[in-house]
Amino acid sequence: MGKVLMGPQTLIYPVPVLLIGANIDDKPNFMAVAWGGIANSVPPMISVAIRRIRYTGRGIRQNMVFSVNVPCVEMVKETDYCGIASGAKVDKVKACRFKVFYGKLGNAPLIEQCPVNLECKVVHILDLGSHSLYIGRVEETHVSEECLTSGKPDVKKIKPFAYTKAPALQYQALGDFVAEAFSVGKELQARK
Amino acid sequence: MGKVLMGPQTLIYPVPVLLIGANIDDKPNFMAVAWGGIANSVPPMISVAIRRIRYTGRGIRQNMVFSVNVPCVEMVKETDYCGIASGAKVDKVKACRFKVFYGKLGNAPLIEQCPVNLECKVVHILDLGSHSLYIGRVEETHVSEECLTSGKPDVKKIKPFAYTKAPALQYQALGDFVAEAFSVGKELQARK
Repeated sequence: MGKVLMGPQTLIYPVPVLLIGANIDDKPNFMAVAWGGIANSVPPMISVAIRRIRYTGRGIRQNMVFSVNVPCVEMVKETDYCGIASGAKVDKVKACRFKVFYGKLGNAPLIEQCPVNLECKVVHILDLGSHSLYIGRVEETHVSEECLTSGKPDVKKIKPFAYTKAPALQYQALGDFVAEAFSVGKELQARK
Repeated sequence: MGKVLMGPQTLIYPVPVLLIGANIDDKPNFMAVAWGGIANSVPPMISVAIRRIRYTGRGIRQNMVFSVNVPCVEMVKETDYCGIASGAKVDKVKACRFKVFYGKLGNAPLIEQCPVNLECKVVHILDLGSHSLYIGRVEETHVSEECLTSGKPDVKKIKPFAYTKAPALQYQALGDFVAEAFSVGKELQARK
């Protein structure tokens, strides 16, 4: 199996598509990010990387809070728009018909139409180059009632999507079940 | 649409499944992580969160480099095993029949069977609680020849998978195309 060198690239799959919310001058704004992930379990933390020129970063630094909203596939148009447009120029909440609500923190705007919403307090900011990496401690999680099965969040009802940049810039749904985690690998335990 | 409060949780979808490699006392070891993401574009950086008790963290701190290997669905058994077993007790390379090679950095072990391999130099370590967050600058990217289409990495050939913890701990493939990114949202630009 031959390998081809491609130079330094952030080539990992899959990466999530998330709508990051912040109030800027007391007005809610959202942007789409795909550079994000889980940063810690106890306490629960999320990392999101935001290009330093973006308007949303200003709001996060103003209040030191942000929200993470997981969009469903039906919201792909609005989500993409939130990645293209700048809140400095347009009212994205209005253009996207987002119903905004606030939770425990009081100043991290949340999107009702998104099946999952996290409220986060900023605990670290790393200026890494083109982007600032915001590490937020999750303070509360909101899940839409109709996305629960037996009281638990159900990925089949949440219908999140991933961003793929290679070979083309596109959004992709989650697909088939592959295997049970922390289980399917057990049979290799017998190998020496 | 009602919302249910679930307390602080790292509930984002999808999260990637990655095999993180490091030499420990000059011996290659790999662990599976799902707490990882892109941290910066220029220069390209990746973040991975590793439980502080894990053996792999020791190797990363010894050499200040690590590798990120993207497994394909056919490697789900080996990947899961690398999340269950500890390199302190077993030789995972042997148990998984991994073919290990080294690239530009010389001491970040890479798995030949994985379609994509990144070599990373540690630029930041944040001890966040249960986990340490390692931020690595990507120094080189290796892609398996058969996973390219017209010279570009092709997600359909790479066949990565996601980790889902809600409602059940499972691995899921990537699915259907949803929409073109930086394009589908443009029609909202006409809205006021």
